[in-house]
Amino acid sequence: MDRALELAARGPAHGPNPRVGCVILAPATPGIPGRTVLGEGWHRGAGTPHAEVAALADARARGHDTRGATAVVTLEPCHHTGRTGPCTRALLDAGITDVVHALADPGVTSGGGADHLRAHGVHVTAGPRSAAALDLVHTWHHAVTTGRPWITLKTATSLDGRVAASDGTSQWITGPQARAHAHAIRAQVDAIAVTTGTALADDPALTARTPTGTLAPHQPLRVVIGHRDLPADHRLLHDGPPPLHLRTHDVGDVLAALHHHEIRHLLVEGGPALAGALLAADVVDELHAYIAPVLLGDGPPAIPPYGITTLATAPRWHTTTTHRLGDDILLIARRTATHPDPDTEEA
Amino acid sequence: MDRALELAARGPAHGPNPRVGCVILAPATPGIPGRTVLGEGWHRGAGTPHAEVAALADARARGHDTRGATAVVTLEPCHHTGRTGPCTRALLDAGITDVVHALADPGVTSGGGADHLRAHGVHVTAGPRSAAALDLVHTWHHAVTTGRPWITLKTATSLDGRVAASDGTSQWITGPQARAHAHAIRAQVDAIAVTTGTALADDPALTARTPTGTLAPHQPLRVVIGHRDLPADHRLLHDGPPPLHLRTHDVGDVLAALHHHEIRHLLVEGGPALAGALLAADVVDELHAYIAPVLLGDGPPAIPPYGITTLATAPRWHTTTTHRLGDDILLIARRTATHPDPDTEEA
Repeated sequence: MDRALELAARGPAHGPNPRVGCVILAPATPGIPGRTVLGEGWHRGAGTPHAEVAALADARARGHDTRGATAVVTLEPCHHTGRTGPCTRALLDAGITDVVHALADPGVTSGGGADHLRAHGVHVTAGPRSAAALDLVHTWHHAVTTGRPWITLKTATSLDGRVAASDGTSQWITGPQARAHAHAIRAQVDAIAVTTGTALADDPALTARTPTGTLAPHQPLRVVIGHRDLPADHRLLHDGPPPLHLRTHDVGDVLAALHHHEIRHLLVEGGPALAGALLAADVVDELHAYIAPVLLGDGPPAIPPYGITTLATAPRWHTTTTHRLGDDILLIARRTATHPDPDTEEA
Repeated sequence: MDRALELAARGPAHGPNPRVGCVILAPATPGIPGRTVLGEGWHRGAGTPHAEVAALADARARGHDTRGATAVVTLEPCHHTGRTGPCTRALLDAGITDVVHALADPGVTSGGGADHLRAHGVHVTAGPRSAAALDLVHTWHHAVTTGRPWITLKTATSLDGRVAASDGTSQWITGPQARAHAHAIRAQVDAIAVTTGTALADDPALTARTPTGTLAPHQPLRVVIGHRDLPADHRLLHDGPPPLHLRTHDVGDVLAALHHHEIRHLLVEGGPALAGALLAADVVDELHAYIAPVLLGDGPPAIPPYGITTLATAPRWHTTTTHRLGDDILLIARRTATHPDPDTEEA
């Protein structure tokens, strides 16, 4: 399974489908420890073969007979015809008699593969390394489980939480290392959202660029939220594929539309009104807070009032990672249900 | 000199005097490498012997003759009679013929020791490890050079820069690890300042406590700044020695009074008006920003408007350290004169 997880990680973090890896093992030979690897495969993105099909093809290309073999796969084989046929069919056709999978498939359409295989006489074992497998596909898993994308809210602020000085100047609060990091994140997500207000004010390209300034191989879908039109000469309309313009302020409508577009991971870059609406709806799953050591004392805040009036009921976050990026820091945090225990220290 | 620096670091970080270490070495013996250590000493705080005097006493206690010996000391020997006599006199009386010191003494009253020693035939060498020696005494060095304390501004805020929710609740934004760290810093400084506004609102004890809740051995002078009286039952008047109440809003008057009290390191804990006044006067030397992963969206900001209107002229800080403290982070930054180079990336 470790090898299958390694293979899975070769796939893209973005895209509608999960990252999956598969290893085909020859039947055990009595008296000889270990199992011969017949084939390996991983999913390279929507429209390409699933990991199981890729691994079976690899085994055939190497001249191996897969009858009686074991498929070790990081996710329960799908039982669904989408852009490609069901993996359950491919495994049965290849004569696979044993399947070991890590994570169960939570999909209402793609799930049920293990039961189908068992019904056809395959010995299916579930569970090893399922936490590691989930880690590889957590945005996809979240989206197919909840029906909405995993939402990462990015802020780039002064130490005192301002996104700009009082005259509106905001370029650049954070330094080049923080900005390069933010571009690398853009290249991993499915979509980036800004409000029409931010688009009109900043005319952002919202492209993912490498440190040398060239476009990254994967560009996220650019999403603009709000009722106003963008001028035709704005970068979002001028450069690259057209953005998705969602003419609504309803968070539920926005998330449903994105889910319909199979967006698994949404990066929200601004403005404050959108951040506030998502926080108020408690649908932000992760914060990426880039913080620069500068104090502005005034200027627009990153987060507007969104309904928190007292500390005890403020949603709490669990810090998963901190990065030093030049003079700036990045704090990554996820929502946690629990509030820290109150205590009674003196100030 | 490495050994002398180790000895110096045994002294207290707080107090009016610098941390100094001294090693007395026997004269070189021809043909034999290395030098015998005759005595060691360090300064233990105001009113106790200086490092040189302590090291000479140690040598005598061990029965050594110090005539013709070398004194290796982290700071230029003082030439000044204060609470104790001048070290130059002690070194000459002991027959020391060579002095090697790291940092030069910048003091207008205590300086001049090297020249005095040279005039009396001592061979004085200056400079080795002066950066390390300065690092040990930087708050003292700053104070005697500039005539005002080194000022550390502490903030404890939400990720969006708020010190409290909109209803005023602020206990506790940061977690127990961050608060324990802040108490450890209190135990290293000479004084803690708050405004009368903060004192009246929060009734803080402003004591330095250990993680078990007991008082730390060193308690900083507590300073209250503002015109209003504190009620007699407030903790600042009730517990421990009386605070220093400076009835002024003039930053220059505050700093002069603190310098007169030989405060080398001042920790400013609140409120926002004091932080703003000190930032506007550009006398904050170091920031300690404790940041909790919570977004409040509203509530009082840590830093009020203090005259920054555009990003390009905002004072910049250099991040020296970041600490993860549970879910919180501490960012420590110092003022830097240079603004990062502007560049022209796309957003």
